[in-house]
Amino acid sequence: MRKHLLSIDDVSVDDIAEIFATAAEMHDVQRREVKKLPALRGRTVINLFFEDSTRTRSSFEIAGKWLSADTINITGKGSSTSKGESLRDTVLTIASMGVDALVMRHSASGAALQVSQWVDAAVINAGDGTHEHPSQALLDAYTLQRRLGSLEGRHVVMVGDLTHSRVFRSNVLCLTKLGARVTVVAPPTLMPSGVAEWSRAAGFETSYDVDAVLPTADAVMMLRVQKERMSGGFFPSPREYTVGYGLTRDRLALLGPDVPICHPGPMNRGLEIAADAADAAQSVILDQVSAGVAVRMAILYHLLAGEGSAA
Amino acid sequence: MRKHLLSIDDVSVDDIAEIFATAAEMHDVQRREVKKLPALRGRTVINLFFEDSTRTRSSFEIAGKWLSADTINITGKGSSTSKGESLRDTVLTIASMGVDALVMRHSASGAALQVSQWVDAAVINAGDGTHEHPSQALLDAYTLQRRLGSLEGRHVVMVGDLTHSRVFRSNVLCLTKLGARVTVVAPPTLMPSGVAEWSRAAGFETSYDVDAVLPTADAVMMLRVQKERMSGGFFPSPREYTVGYGLTRDRLALLGPDVPICHPGPMNRGLEIAADAADAAQSVILDQVSAGVAVRMAILYHLLAGEGSAA
Amino acid sequence: MRKHLLSIDDVSVDDIAEIFATAAEMHDVQRREVKKLPALRGRTVINLFFEDSTRTRSSFEIAGKWLSADTINITGKGSSTSKGESLRDTVLTIASMGVDALVMRHSASGAALQVSQWVDAAVINAGDGTHEHPSQALLDAYTLQRRLGSLEGRHVVMVGDLTHSRVFRSNVLCLTKLGARVTVVAPPTLMPSGVAEWSRAAGFETSYDVDAVLPTADAVMMLRVQKERMSGGFFPSPREYTVGYGLTRDRLALLGPDVPICHPGPMNRGLEIAADAADAAQSVILDQVSAGVAVRMAILYHLLAGEGSAA
Repeated sequence: MRKHLLSIDDVSVDDIAEIFATAAEMHDVQRREVKKLPALRGRTVINLFFEDSTRTRSSFEIAGKWLSADTINITGKGSSTSKGESLRDTVLTIASMGVDALVMRHSASGAALQVSQWVDAAVINAGDGTHEHPSQALLDAYTLQRRLGSLEGRHVVMVGDLTHSRVFRSNVLCLTKLGARVTVVAPPTLMPSGVAEWSRAAGFETSYDVDAVLPTADAVMMLRVQKERMSGGFFPSPREYTVGYGLTRDRLALLGPDVPICHPGPMNRGLEIAADAADAAQSVILDQVSAGVAVRMAILYHLLAGEGSAA
Repeated sequence: MRKHLLSIDDVSVDDIAEIFATAAEMHDVQRREVKKLPALRGRTVINLFFEDSTRTRSSFEIAGKWLSADTINITGKGSSTSKGESLRDTVLTIASMGVDALVMRHSASGAALQVSQWVDAAVINAGDGTHEHPSQALLDAYTLQRRLGSLEGRHVVMVGDLTHSRVFRSNVLCLTKLGARVTVVAPPTLMPSGVAEWSRAAGFETSYDVDAVLPTADAVMMLRVQKERMSGGFFPSPREYTVGYGLTRDRLALLGPDVPICHPGPMNRGLEIAADAADAAQSVILDQVSAGVAVRMAILYHLLAGEGSAA
Repeated sequence: MRKHLLSIDDVSVDDIAEIFATAAEMHDVQRREVKKLPALRGRTVINLFFEDSTRTRSSFEIAGKWLSADTINITGKGSSTSKGESLRDTVLTIASMGVDALVMRHSASGAALQVSQWVDAAVINAGDGTHEHPSQALLDAYTLQRRLGSLEGRHVVMVGDLTHSRVFRSNVLCLTKLGARVTVVAPPTLMPSGVAEWSRAAGFETSYDVDAVLPTADAVMMLRVQKERMSGGFFPSPREYTVGYGLTRDRLALLGPDVPICHPGPMNRGLEIAADAADAAQSVILDQVSAGVAVRMAILYHLLAGEGSAA
């Protein structure tokens, strides 16, 4: 495995298998009463979040703590960057303190890659603009693989605001790498420009018609849409989005009863996903959250644990 | 003891005795140079505060850390709920990560009870709207019991903005449960509606006349009033409140010299309590803070430590 | 060493030598894979920051964690003081929980000294208004001493907004105490009133002419200027400041090639320091950050570790 986790491109199929094997062990730890391994004792993990986050930050913080790492949170608000410091100076400063990993979220696509060229610490991209969110893709694939067995040849359908979704980009890379057949669905106004070329090169399909695609899905991933973006005569309006693309109670009936339903959260219930779907027996949304800690423990372990460390 | 601490109704007299016995041991730990017990190693405590708090959050955080638990803070600001996620989805997400206890403060009365019905983790109510704040009542009673010996038959007088006080509600339940005679005092406009019925049922007394009640007090608890509420012709104005209900230097003379003075903080010095009273030899306000950590350690210990754990 | 670190006046030349010797050991720990010492296990360090800070807060938090102390962050925003509590009540409350050290930053000069008179805990001044920032001065001197050997008789030049700089004040005290010859340079409008008297008493020099002073420097410290202060016809404007006092590429040529360049950060690149100077081989700006953790570990160790403790 490479030194950083910036993109799904940084992990090979073998790396993913290794991460998933470790995550499965971590998942067992997670069910114990005493959730604590000594593997990263004396390592320091910084959560550097220039954008708000509850679940990703907490998930990494818990993952670090259960591995006995020292974890420290730094947020963009009230940080040196708000005093006019450049991103480069901010991260060089933090790295110079002697940290082992920087888990970072930033509004600019490419920020994590840029930072990895400046610092010695391992950089984990926890979301860079509309670009990538690789730990999310890994936990999604881990969750689906536990549910479906191998992803080889399985049909995964992703529906949502693809233009603004880093989860979409990382998931397409990860799922196709694991042999899944992927279809992405969005209204034309939320389909990213250039997706036609990318889909041909990467071997996934695109569609505007969710009702045509759902019946063939082995798994479905609903992505978050942002209401704020749908104002001022934008098409679709929230109401139109739900009617055309939401996983409503009616569309739920188009899915096989064992087809897992994913959502990276936070959900807009009633907008992109109905309560019937979110809370259905086949929903794996909370399994994703649970797997998130295990997968992030595995990521931290593989990036930081020395040769002599034992989990 | 029950699984959660949502209300003083969740703890029996025996539970309280057990908590106080453990708290006394924790109080001894607190005076040591090395303040650390292994009891909750590998357990994870989330402080989920939707409202600002310094003392309660810090107190629980210190309590968790001294018991070797992993503690993680999540605030409402910048959390997923600010992105439109429902409370239920937020807490299910956090709980799914594998946490053992959720210490939560929320502006809605009943929020902690509601959350306890959704999650497997132990829920500790650290303040829900104007409803309850049970750990505060337990630390108040612990402080008074150390000062007065048994509370059986002792007269405790509470003065303040009862309408908006969760501390008042939890304290009435706790003190009457421990056999104290309780009188609550407020101006008519800050006396909660329905208090007459509740006081008859629960066996405590109400009064509008603080000067008549103070001479018979074995302990006095001044509650915080919020200046912001007293604007626009409200009666009483801050000045009128002090004259009519504040623990002024003159009223201090109505109290016996050994009568402990409590305040849950933060204090409005000069409004509900004069500096002479706050800093009097008989003030136990800082003892309350110190007891707070010990009592919260005891609460966490009783809710989370397995059968085999030793303090 | 005294109980608190409020000012450089609190540490003797012998204390500084002891802190630096410990810091050198800590610096070695910092380079290890496992950065963890048991020295402060069971001690509690509160970072109480009433003003925003990234680097100082993180540096103290890492220092505490590597020494195995429990560290807890409390910020002014959302704290009890924002509910109208007095500073005295806030710090007495925190101290009553049983904390061992309060690391505090406050906008009022003298705040840390005032607080040290109220609480039993060790108080470390992490910046009080425009007064002092002693841990910064110690890490600056430590960095220079490692570079230059002894500071005895060496000429250190400080340039910047001296009126508003607590770093300037602490550094003058520390460097002159260690035998350095100090010259401080600023435009007349940013030279503090009373500096003439102070410089005569304390034995340092002042100048308005940076170009005349730089060629004789054995080390140069550029201080941060705040653009916000330079508005509305203020002299100098940011542009004028750079031309008159910035460490530009041209001025860099006035320095010997081994003269270390310091800056406490966050830097305004292009204002008080050019990129050529900040990133020059002779820049020790990131060494300062790295030394910061080691020196703060040493400070915490000397203030908190009991007689029987071993690093």
